[in-house]
Amino acid sequence: MHLNIKEPTTRNAKNTFEQIEKAAIKLFYKKGYHGTTVKDITSEAGVAAGTFYLYFPSKVVLYKHILTSFSHNIRKHIAEKVAQKTSRLDKEKEGIKAFILYAKKNPEMYNIIWESLYIDRELFRDYYESFAIRYVNGLEKAKRNQEIRDVDSEIMSFILMGITNFIGLKVVFDLGQDNDDIEHIVDGVLDLLKNGLFTK
Amino acid sequence: MHLNIKEPTTRNAKNTFEQIEKAAIKLFYKKGYHGTTVKDITSEAGVAAGTFYLYFPSKVVLYKHILTSFSHNIRKHIAEKVAQKTSRLDKEKEGIKAFILYAKKNPEMYNIIWESLYIDRELFRDYYESFAIRYVNGLEKAKRNQEIRDVDSEIMSFILMGITNFIGLKVVFDLGQDNDDIEHIVDGVLDLLKNGLFTK
Repeated sequence: MHLNIKEPTTRNAKNTFEQIEKAAIKLFYKKGYHGTTVKDITSEAGVAAGTFYLYFPSKVVLYKHILTSFSHNIRKHIAEKVAQKTSRLDKEKEGIKAFILYAKKNPEMYNIIWESLYIDRELFRDYYESFAIRYVNGLEKAKRNQEIRDVDSEIMSFILMGITNFIGLKVVFDLGQDNDDIEHIVDGVLDLLKNGLFTK
Repeated sequence: MHLNIKEPTTRNAKNTFEQIEKAAIKLFYKKGYHGTTVKDITSEAGVAAGTFYLYFPSKVVLYKHILTSFSHNIRKHIAEKVAQKTSRLDKEKEGIKAFILYAKKNPEMYNIIWESLYIDRELFRDYYESFAIRYVNGLEKAKRNQEIRDVDSEIMSFILMGITNFIGLKVVFDLGQDNDDIEHIVDGVLDLLKNGLFTK
């Protein structure tokens, strides 16, 4: 996605850019995208109102920039953890754990990603479609290596995204019990992936 | 949740009430809760502006009423389908299928439920927490009947809600392939629940 952003070049400009970004994440989380004005953002960032437009042509472009950054950071964070493992089983376990820990550390993540549904429906579609495509690639490789059964990789990618997202929701929103015991929760997921749910 | 709504009693009043409800669902879906005013709703419903307040003290109360109705209708729709089956395996299959078909028929469902996150975070928590509690009861029963393995029912309830929600997203947002073949998609989920993902 090409965004019409003027990237900062000097150290001062970079600081300002980051202050605006940080203020926007905080306010979008707290008051929502629609409840936050550009003026709220510059005021929270402690910069002059006009400064915003030196970098971003509009609030929606800043939002898209933040969404892209989250998407990039989550993937990078997961990819780094997963790369340390060799088997698909360990990669899956590490990936799910990395996602949950990232979500726990960045509780504003769900709010900001899902708010795309109310800002531009296509952003929401793109986000999950591109996440699914990467997942499918990993599953296809695991299939070739006979590490996983011969499943429909695309359906499985949505199943696994769903599991990870809702387990993450449970932890971030502290729904039910055991939310401090991430290992136990991840083991619960792995148990299903290894053994299924039903008795034979 | 007690809502301070004045229920309509006459047939005319019921019609008006339903027109307001229908108009709000349409506009919340199209323009979002924050982008929709009470005046937009009465105008779309074709009723006088003041009529709104005969039934609802505020926009948020109408939103809560709609969220509660969706929640109630989804559960009722699923429960009816599930009740026709005896084994937990068939119940699970029927429940997932019923959810997806409901979501497909009511594509505004995701928008309206998830928007609670931006209206009142507690509504969002309550929605999933109460859904999970019902799910846990069903799983505990299946465990006692030895139909499912001895899993952590609470973790499993979030896993299953996640699977169902994201498979539903795939269908409603037409992400990837096979979205007209609901049977194939549900079979993909059941295959995981029966056999797990990994080769032994």
